[in-house]
Amino acid sequence: MSVICVGTMAFDTIETPFGKAERIVGGSGTYVAYAAGNFVKPIQQISIVGYDFPQDEMNELKKRGVELDGVEIVKDKKSFFWSGKYHMDMNSRDTLVTDLNVLEDFNPKVPDSYQGAEFLMLGNLMPKLQLSVINQLKKRPKLIVMDTMNFWMDIAMDDLKEVLKKVDVLLVNDAEARQLSDELSLVKAARLIMDMGPKFLIIKKGEHGALLFHEEHVFFAPALPLEEVFDPTGAGDTFAGGFIGHLAKTKDISFGNMKTAIIVGSAMASFCVEKFGPERLKEITKEDIDARLSEFVQLVNFDIDLV
Amino acid sequence: MSVICVGTMAFDTIETPFGKAERIVGGSGTYVAYAAGNFVKPIQQISIVGYDFPQDEMNELKKRGVELDGVEIVKDKKSFFWSGKYHMDMNSRDTLVTDLNVLEDFNPKVPDSYQGAEFLMLGNLMPKLQLSVINQLKKRPKLIVMDTMNFWMDIAMDDLKEVLKKVDVLLVNDAEARQLSDELSLVKAARLIMDMGPKFLIIKKGEHGALLFHEEHVFFAPALPLEEVFDPTGAGDTFAGGFIGHLAKTKDISFGNMKTAIIVGSAMASFCVEKFGPERLKEITKEDIDARLSEFVQLVNFDIDLV
Repeated sequence: MSVICVGTMAFDTIETPFGKAERIVGGSGTYVAYAAGNFVKPIQQISIVGYDFPQDEMNELKKRGVELDGVEIVKDKKSFFWSGKYHMDMNSRDTLVTDLNVLEDFNPKVPDSYQGAEFLMLGNLMPKLQLSVINQLKKRPKLIVMDTMNFWMDIAMDDLKEVLKKVDVLLVNDAEARQLSDELSLVKAARLIMDMGPKFLIIKKGEHGALLFHEEHVFFAPALPLEEVFDPTGAGDTFAGGFIGHLAKTKDISFGNMKTAIIVGSAMASFCVEKFGPERLKEITKEDIDARLSEFVQLVNFDIDLV
Repeated sequence: MSVICVGTMAFDTIETPFGKAERIVGGSGTYVAYAAGNFVKPIQQISIVGYDFPQDEMNELKKRGVELDGVEIVKDKKSFFWSGKYHMDMNSRDTLVTDLNVLEDFNPKVPDSYQGAEFLMLGNLMPKLQLSVINQLKKRPKLIVMDTMNFWMDIAMDDLKEVLKKVDVLLVNDAEARQLSDELSLVKAARLIMDMGPKFLIIKKGEHGALLFHEEHVFFAPALPLEEVFDPTGAGDTFAGGFIGHLAKTKDISFGNMKTAIIVGSAMASFCVEKFGPERLKEITKEDIDARLSEFVQLVNFDIDLV
């Protein structure tokens, strides 16, 4: 069961109240691939990097079952670079630098070897490029999951709404759900957004967990209460990777299984924030993941007798 | 199984983006009694009111199994009055008026008929008065639950810390937990607060649910995602009433049963916010409560296979 993953592979410089990490590997596609690779192989990556992206990182991804045929390497340009600084509460951040570099010319091409994939993860990226990937697929995947962000709502809302018509699951945060729907109540916002196309909507609320909406159903997954959030960068992408990884592994796209997939995504995100960048995602084992999932069961499980 | 409930019985004038309610019945003790009365009888109320508190309301409470021997009626003074205005997001509010009136002279007395109660709910009130009630009890209750607020942390922190030494469960919101512990991380804050006395700590996060801490355990209860929050006044007190009501009904104060009690509290709070004041709490039936509890089960239930 292969999963195509479209997203950025980049460098980040990150400052948090706990420290600073200079030019470490990041990007939505990188986080999704590291997270999803724990559950399903191959991950068929579509991205673009410059001459400066480390071969070691490529090898590490390959070792984990990530195919890189769809990753274009531009010899005379640098990789996408983002720099940000988190505030004390870790829920908000300022972007300090955004150097598009190779991303300016990105024109994703789906390799022939990727055709027939049953799952497509559209990581956070220009909506036009997300759409281009969908249109290149000869057979529609069983499930298309789309991540996006407020930035594209500000500058490319029409394109974004075009993509929305073609996807099954949309991932946004609470502020983005409100912006996209122009509605303060998340329950009402969810209904309006599902009318735009996606049959399933996930609203991420950071440390406050995530909501899954489908028709009249709603499911809530908490975030694990952590002593310290060391670096939230990539947590949303990691969540998406765990989510689609679980669905692809189990080949079950029912609402019931999406509930479990969201718990898996939350568990993966809870690892991501423990260290700078995707570092922690590279360390964890299947045993670590299972232990974390057990913590989630303990966290929300209760007994009740209803007559 | 009787429950002593100490708290205010008052009038509120409430303004929300949805409308305004003038001088409706409110007060922490009123909400706790209406909520807990669904699960256990008698509720033994301790409070103070003025000449203006409606006899109809007293009768309504009595009809629901609330004993009023401990409610002092002051013939020549008005009842406590609070007025507030909620902001658009309903998470924050401005206090417009606080007329203490009878509350200035409140010196709660535990009637002889209340002695021997196994549960004590200390609703939000001056810490000195909460302590006075504890000290008047000849036999320590099986469980003492304490609610409080940032206002008392600002002006009576030393008194508050004295009460903390004597209670089993403390209820605060996230901002109050941070203020009380001087610690930003809620997980660390919880540990520090439990060192002050309470063996159990509930941190309420409004629309983001509630956390229960005990030793190294943590449990999370979501708030029900609602289309509209009409009036949040009293939601915290109602939560407390449902919580202690369930514990008293089941006579089980284990961590496992407290998880369920928090879900019950969350369900009761989700009714409270649907109308102004305690109105909605007076309408609901056992069937309504069971149906709401089923919604909570649906909201958080998921299947997972762990090896």
